[in-house]
Amino acid sequence: MVKFMSNGLEAIFNPKSVAVIGATEIEGKVGQSLMKNLKSFMEKGGNVYPINKKYDEVYGLKCYGSVLDVPGDIDLVLVSIPAKFVPGTMEECGKKGVKGSIIITAGFSEVGDHSLEEKTIEILKKYDIRTIGPNCLGVINMHDELNASFSKDFDQKGNIAFISQSGAIMTALMDISIPLNLGYSKIVSMGNKIDVQEDEILDYLADDEHTDVVVLYVEGLKNEKFIDSARALSHKKPVIVLKSGKSDAGAKAASSHTGSLAGNAQMYEAAFKKGMVFDVETFEEMVDLLKIFSTQPVMKGNNVGIITNAGGFGVLATDMVSKYGLKMAEFEEKTITELKKYLPDTSGVSNPLDLIGDADTDRYKHAFEELAKDSNVDGIVVILTPQGMTDDIGAAKELVKFQDALRAKGEAIPIVAAWVGGGSVAEGAEYLKEHEIPTFMCPELAVKALSATYQQYLNQNVVDDGEYLKKVQEEIYAIKAEKGDELRELLANPNENNAKEFLKINGVPTPGRYVATSVEEAVKYASTMDKVVMKVVSAQILHKSDAGCVLIAPTDIEGAYNTIIENGTQYLAQKGETGVIDGVLIEEFVEGKEIIIGGKKDEVFGPVIMTGLGGIFVEVMKDVTFGVHPITKNYAEDMLKQLRTYKILEGVRGEPKRDIEFIKELIVRVGVIMEAYDEIQEIDINPVFVKEDGKKGVIGDALIMTK
Amino acid sequence: MVKFMSNGLEAIFNPKSVAVIGATEIEGKVGQSLMKNLKSFMEKGGNVYPINKKYDEVYGLKCYGSVLDVPGDIDLVLVSIPAKFVPGTMEECGKKGVKGSIIITAGFSEVGDHSLEEKTIEILKKYDIRTIGPNCLGVINMHDELNASFSKDFDQKGNIAFISQSGAIMTALMDISIPLNLGYSKIVSMGNKIDVQEDEILDYLADDEHTDVVVLYVEGLKNEKFIDSARALSHKKPVIVLKSGKSDAGAKAASSHTGSLAGNAQMYEAAFKKGMVFDVETFEEMVDLLKIFSTQPVMKGNNVGIITNAGGFGVLATDMVSKYGLKMAEFEEKTITELKKYLPDTSGVSNPLDLIGDADTDRYKHAFEELAKDSNVDGIVVILTPQGMTDDIGAAKELVKFQDALRAKGEAIPIVAAWVGGGSVAEGAEYLKEHEIPTFMCPELAVKALSATYQQYLNQNVVDDGEYLKKVQEEIYAIKAEKGDELRELLANPNENNAKEFLKINGVPTPGRYVATSVEEAVKYASTMDKVVMKVVSAQILHKSDAGCVLIAPTDIEGAYNTIIENGTQYLAQKGETGVIDGVLIEEFVEGKEIIIGGKKDEVFGPVIMTGLGGIFVEVMKDVTFGVHPITKNYAEDMLKQLRTYKILEGVRGEPKRDIEFIKELIVRVGVIMEAYDEIQEIDINPVFVKEDGKKGVIGDALIMTK
Repeated sequence: MVKFMSNGLEAIFNPKSVAVIGATEIEGKVGQSLMKNLKSFMEKGGNVYPINKKYDEVYGLKCYGSVLDVPGDIDLVLVSIPAKFVPGTMEECGKKGVKGSIIITAGFSEVGDHSLEEKTIEILKKYDIRTIGPNCLGVINMHDELNASFSKDFDQKGNIAFISQSGAIMTALMDISIPLNLGYSKIVSMGNKIDVQEDEILDYLADDEHTDVVVLYVEGLKNEKFIDSARALSHKKPVIVLKSGKSDAGAKAASSHTGSLAGNAQMYEAAFKKGMVFDVETFEEMVDLLKIFSTQPVMKGNNVGIITNAGGFGVLATDMVSKYGLKMAEFEEKTITELKKYLPDTSGVSNPLDLIGDADTDRYKHAFEELAKDSNVDGIVVILTPQGMTDDIGAAKELVKFQDALRAKGEAIPIVAAWVGGGSVAEGAEYLKEHEIPTFMCPELAVKALSATYQQYLNQNVVDDGEYLKKVQEEIYAIKAEKGDELRELLANPNENNAKEFLKINGVPTPGRYVATSVEEAVKYASTMDKVVMKVVSAQILHKSDAGCVLIAPTDIEGAYNTIIENGTQYLAQKGETGVIDGVLIEEFVEGKEIIIGGKKDEVFGPVIMTGLGGIFVEVMKDVTFGVHPITKNYAEDMLKQLRTYKILEGVRGEPKRDIEFIKELIVRVGVIMEAYDEIQEIDINPVFVKEDGKKGVIGDALIMTK
Repeated sequence: MVKFMSNGLEAIFNPKSVAVIGATEIEGKVGQSLMKNLKSFMEKGGNVYPINKKYDEVYGLKCYGSVLDVPGDIDLVLVSIPAKFVPGTMEECGKKGVKGSIIITAGFSEVGDHSLEEKTIEILKKYDIRTIGPNCLGVINMHDELNASFSKDFDQKGNIAFISQSGAIMTALMDISIPLNLGYSKIVSMGNKIDVQEDEILDYLADDEHTDVVVLYVEGLKNEKFIDSARALSHKKPVIVLKSGKSDAGAKAASSHTGSLAGNAQMYEAAFKKGMVFDVETFEEMVDLLKIFSTQPVMKGNNVGIITNAGGFGVLATDMVSKYGLKMAEFEEKTITELKKYLPDTSGVSNPLDLIGDADTDRYKHAFEELAKDSNVDGIVVILTPQGMTDDIGAAKELVKFQDALRAKGEAIPIVAAWVGGGSVAEGAEYLKEHEIPTFMCPELAVKALSATYQQYLNQNVVDDGEYLKKVQEEIYAIKAEKGDELRELLANPNENNAKEFLKINGVPTPGRYVATSVEEAVKYASTMDKVVMKVVSAQILHKSDAGCVLIAPTDIEGAYNTIIENGTQYLAQKGETGVIDGVLIEEFVEGKEIIIGGKKDEVFGPVIMTGLGGIFVEVMKDVTFGVHPITKNYAEDMLKQLRTYKILEGVRGEPKRDIEFIKELIVRVGVIMEAYDEIQEIDINPVFVKEDGKKGVIGDALIMTK
């Protein structure tokens, strides 16, 4: 059964021997639930060792005072003892050579006891014990009969792997899965996540033959590894994430609820986009996606066929097809010719295919048969409402036969159903559910779910092209190796001139530029340029315009120089800061379409790059997009296309197309620069002047903030 | 019981005598269902007359060959005979003095037979028979025991009025209403709507004591009256609309499905916004709003209290509170002090109020009791998930007691619940439903529904201020009366100069302007202005810039004049049109923030006014907003505030605040002008130059298209 080893998680998911620390027969105690839930594991040959100083025997098994007393090897320990005893116990587990642990016990960082948690982490690290928890419900490996949790009996075996940072949401989903007929492969309650994080579990699940779809409830992630693991997994299987704490108010609640630090909504959104996960907003959406992904294949094209006995619902479904980026299939000629034989004239025989209110089971049957032969249809929505001649169960049976026939031919396309109504359609809807056809309370939700399978098809076929990124990485690190000292010096005093010099050395195009420290120098430098911009050089004056320290295309260079020095000095004096004015920057005046490229080191995800059109578009319209480094060129393009203003870059209203390639490359480069220099906390290049297509661009102003 | 008469609809909703034309005892026939469904009506004293030449008696009642043979008066006829016989039969009904009819029969415009429909309409008009249908299921007045439809038995009496343009959607909602415990007052199947439209029914329902919430399924509206009726009704009761055919693909499907012309999505959106209806997107959303509006009061403030035994769901709900424009209530000091007595330390006692996973019924009870006394809470979301100590039914009973107590005190606030899970919470959820507490499958949906009640509270308190509108109307009609001939002449040749002259006479500020027909005139006129714009004057050259016929601030006036005449002549020649160049407009050069104001006569809604910031904002960002005339100043403000660029008008980045009052007034005026002149089909004022606050503005270019 064990076909591979991955990060030591095999000891957690597929142990041969399990010790229950805190085992007991006392009803209502977690240690008792754990023992009872391990019954199937024992039956199929697993070793279980109860550990508890109070007992000699638990449920007929010899009970030991410590793991150290157990004669055989222990792969996994389940820990359910008071928190304060956990570090000592884990020390013993380490000495025993235990490979994995699931710490059920609560009372760590989630109640504010960070030192106890730190102490435990130290011991786990020392002995390399891979650990889930603490403060969790445990782990279930359905197909291998391992229930290493204290949840209630749960018998819904299937192909969904569920990873949850909340025990309550885990329990709620498991409970609702019974009537919804959703089955699971692995269930993991993450708790405080002091060791194993989501990313490793995703890696593990990528090759798990029992898992076809992965769903996570997340309150906060601890590092950026999730992104790559999710993206790699998404190339094979759909990954659904329900993340709480997205709003500001929500974030506040999250941090008062668990020890996890709730993240910024935009960072998570960017991370999830890069991970290609289904970033659902509600528990309902999550359940709807589980219904379809656990039963249906992906849609390999975007052409939807709709069959209905209610014209109105057909139109509502059609509205959603358009909303969710799908298309109404054009039926083949032969489909229409054949269908006309069976349908009344009033049907029209188009898509949506209206079987008319008096449709009987036969009409549904003919519709299924003809659509099955139509190669223009990539996915099907079937709608049924209770009307005069409606036979909800008859139509359901025909639909299942249709699905079986397609599957037998190896031509399965996704099928979704909406049997809309109450008691009159309940039996048919139940039949569909039992036969793996997902049903929804209305056609609009069915179409929405269907569209996700097409998105998953696209995800699976995304090509990751990292060549340019790699080239830039090599280049930037080579520059760092060669000119490290000079660059570090520039970062030590990151005024505008130094920031630009730093970026220039790192391959970012900057305008011609000199720093004048006297009127004479200013006049001399300015005379070498057509038109100049003059700005104060001072690391202490961040908002140079507000300080009256930027002059554009002045004609009197001498006057301009004096004004800037004067205004800068006054500004610093008013702020009461002991700032230094390093001189006046004399810079070539450049033009182009203004965009912004910024980078910020996020605590969880590392460098996150933002871009958008400058001025009003970013400041008022908030039309910006975020990408998590490392960013490939393709990914940079995806980022840009998310801008509502993207069309402006492509050229509109007589304006030329801009050099989008240049923007993409600069986004990649800024990410790599942030990666290469630990001390850089934030970069804001605003504006970047982008020239016409093929003519690249040049940066206008740059701000670097260091730690 | 009959307390008022309204538009003759009383004959349809509250007849004293009903004739069934096409009555029969044959099972499966509509005429039989109609007879059977009228049983209760007869039992409470209503007269029923079967009409059918084939029978002497139907279900023991004397059957007549024609309505003309019936001895007594007939208030209402239900018609179920082949379509071709309908006109003749309605002629007889007219002669008989029948007041209302419900034509069930199909086979009119929906299958393409428009002439039969026209013929029927003529007769109905001649005799003033108010009619529902044809091609409909009928009408049910639940509280007065009138089932004038052929639907199945339906016993869900309640406070929802349902108006549906689709029989299938009506049947589906009725069917699902049984398990959902939704009850109805009136149900109307509209069919092809040859006479009675939705607006009259809305007017009728405004004073219907049995109706607290109104829901409509609409495929298309036939006139603009819906808006005012919906708005008036919305001031009292929530109105929910599910409209199909919103997408382009959807619109195509709708027109192939019914005889109704599917409307443009934006027009409907604007109309629904003005009507203050809940413009839901899915059948599910519609059902969710029915659940809450039929049971709960509106939320009179936006402060939400959340009670949960699952922290994760509490945070998800909080996310939604923020998303739907509500706020998390700040609990009063005393609430927190009291709650601390009953809750474990780990709860934190904040909002969302986490009762912690091991919460028993008592904890819920204390939470309810304390929140009931907290005046900072305007609405409550209660979440329960199945965990160790959870008693789903116990908590449900406490919640119902809590609701009862609040109602008894006359302090009802809306309560929504999410008992999340399957079998473990089903009994409790059922109990809540039976006791009028709406339950949702997840807290996110509960919050969304709750937010709608706050919106309804705001709708009920919207003040409609039409003073300025009235003033403009008086002014425009006075101008029309005085200068009708001159104005009509201008509209007959609506070149730019005439369009501007027309608008100027109608009080729209235009820049100084002369038409030169010679170089000499051009030079003379230009000399009177600081800076000019020169443009060709020709009704045949719409896109003047493209034709090279606009020159801004030329210095060589003579050259400019000749260039424009030359380019214009060439342009017309190339188009092969026999166009006329009326001269060259010499116009004062004006500046300001550019916005667009346009008007279009919509087939359904009449004049619809559009506005937005000019240039890229409208052309690329599509940031425009629509309003349906008549537009009050308040309404114009609402329109503007819907713009994402509204902040630009308010002044950003050092730019001044613009004269928003001026924009509002111009929007109102353009609407009135369109109303006053039948021949105007479209007006495009692009750009309007808006000056700084208080300094009004002036239009740049104007285009008027006439019929």
